[in-house]
Amino acid sequence: MFTWHKYSFVLALTLTAVGCASTSNTSLNPDAPITLSKQGSFFVGGRDVKSDSLSALPRYAPKEGGTVAVEQMYVHYQEPINAKLPPLVLMHGCCLTGKSWETTPDGRMGWDELFVRRGFPTYVIDQVSRGRSAAETSSIVKAKAGRAESGTLPQVFNAARESAWTLFRFGPEYPRVFPGMQFPLEAQAELWKQMVPDWFNALPTPNPTVPALSQLAQKLNGAVLVGHSQSGIYSFQAAALSRQGVAGIVAIEPGACQAPTVDMKPYANLPILVVWGDNTEASSLWGPRPKQCGDFVAAANKAGAKAQMVMLKDVGFPGASHMLMQDKHSIEIGNWLADWLEKNVTR
Amino acid sequence: MFTWHKYSFVLALTLTAVGCASTSNTSLNPDAPITLSKQGSFFVGGRDVKSDSLSALPRYAPKEGGTVAVEQMYVHYQEPINAKLPPLVLMHGCCLTGKSWETTPDGRMGWDELFVRRGFPTYVIDQVSRGRSAAETSSIVKAKAGRAESGTLPQVFNAARESAWTLFRFGPEYPRVFPGMQFPLEAQAELWKQMVPDWFNALPTPNPTVPALSQLAQKLNGAVLVGHSQSGIYSFQAAALSRQGVAGIVAIEPGACQAPTVDMKPYANLPILVVWGDNTEASSLWGPRPKQCGDFVAAANKAGAKAQMVMLKDVGFPGASHMLMQDKHSIEIGNWLADWLEKNVTR
Repeated sequence: MFTWHKYSFVLALTLTAVGCASTSNTSLNPDAPITLSKQGSFFVGGRDVKSDSLSALPRYAPKEGGTVAVEQMYVHYQEPINAKLPPLVLMHGCCLTGKSWETTPDGRMGWDELFVRRGFPTYVIDQVSRGRSAAETSSIVKAKAGRAESGTLPQVFNAARESAWTLFRFGPEYPRVFPGMQFPLEAQAELWKQMVPDWFNALPTPNPTVPALSQLAQKLNGAVLVGHSQSGIYSFQAAALSRQGVAGIVAIEPGACQAPTVDMKPYANLPILVVWGDNTEASSLWGPRPKQCGDFVAAANKAGAKAQMVMLKDVGFPGASHMLMQDKHSIEIGNWLADWLEKNVTR
Repeated sequence: MFTWHKYSFVLALTLTAVGCASTSNTSLNPDAPITLSKQGSFFVGGRDVKSDSLSALPRYAPKEGGTVAVEQMYVHYQEPINAKLPPLVLMHGCCLTGKSWETTPDGRMGWDELFVRRGFPTYVIDQVSRGRSAAETSSIVKAKAGRAESGTLPQVFNAARESAWTLFRFGPEYPRVFPGMQFPLEAQAELWKQMVPDWFNALPTPNPTVPALSQLAQKLNGAVLVGHSQSGIYSFQAAALSRQGVAGIVAIEPGACQAPTVDMKPYANLPILVVWGDNTEASSLWGPRPKQCGDFVAAANKAGAKAQMVMLKDVGFPGASHMLMQDKHSIEIGNWLADWLEKNVTR
């Protein structure tokens, strides 16, 4: 007995001393160390184009022009050790980048890390033409040099905070706040800094992010596509391109779902979750969308999908904004989603 | 003795079982798990501007305009457990983003991870107006709507691979290769996908990245500023703004050093390292620069700096290209740099 006692003591001491009692199953405590089996970044998609308009400054613009890569998609990933679950592809929405999923504006753990702690590899993307995924600027160079009409300039746009306020449903109009709304408004300045010019309307149809997403899913050999807002529809479009590699779809406050009249074969047997925060009914923009997605969910289920739509207030999370991965209860919502994935998605 | 034997056995077994023999000092093996004490991202700098040109599409452009944040700098960080060394701020060069420091084009560990394994927290930035740091696009919107002359468009430029080839010193001209050059050309497509439009020439002077960098150094309470190429000069400029928080400077193939005639007081007692790869003398662009930096190093040392310039071929690393953090011997060069930092920089 004495010897075993010593064993236990040494065991406890060892685990404590190296600070890794939970290394084989990283702690859910955001302040605990996190162990990754691997991490890194790469691109998927992309094509080469020749450009004769690299710069309006001669020293940057060889006369003969040159080749640049466009439409590639940046992907940053982290994998936990002993990952047992399918990877998640986390896609940001309008006017944002993959930063959306990282540290929240008020400095808490982002979903990129939360899901790793829950055992899911996470793959965070920057949509094509935004963030670390290059935009094509030849038309700007050409117009500046007077070699093209200004109408050919890219249809780029910025969302100001005053309109984003309503779009993100912090309140009915800037700067009014919905009662009980959970976005950490004291840290809003950090959110506004996340916003970047959006090239969405300057891109061809279909948006090149969609085939890149399909390519990524196939490379991962089974992934759950998690879209937010603008990118919510991309997952459905990618599954329609090819079911290969698509293990499930989570659409968080999608800008749109597929129409209930489209071919539903791509969604047969597919776990699908559509999630909404609060106060959609108080928004002229968002008001009709849960019903539209509900119609899709019903039609997909008729065709054999395993689709579900959830209003977060009905499962214990009232006050969620459109930016719910950054809300004060983002960790609790993320853990609820991880539970749903564990129950409903298999690799 | 028997009892101690058992102790050792239990100790070894425990450490092996939880897979964390090296958790308190993460293994240098890039295939081994890596344990972080913390990670995340945030912005430094930035200011609010009112814009009446958010979009050329009325549905995205409220008549009254709105407020957007510009000139903020995105920072992504990882800290090892038991970090003993000052953090490194890793800054990318022309036409690139923070991706430069991540996974190499041929899929090996990037310096962002290597230095964490060596005990240094790493802070990787995207320069202002690039990557995840928002660019200001009002002038594009304005010109597209016909409300501004095309001459007001931003002086944005792209580097084509044919000219980047020479700039990065893969060879004397595209597609010729310098003998022994170490960039993994078989994976060059992945490098070309890293390249993004560069807003450098569209920015005010001084480049807003410089004050943001100074702010970051102060926030970190002592950091080594590691600039590459275009950003090499930023570290010197930031130290001239304020020495607070600047624990050292590493300029990797800097586009320029300070002139030897500037005030050298900001560099007194400061560890400074300027590093060059091979074949600079064969490049009309790079040829004069080592001498220019050598003059700075000499002048800084006269004023009490601890400055040093190293040609990598002289310390055992021939064939380094301009993109030496991605070269085939990038891990060896990185470890050499870590050794230099351990010897020369104190927190």
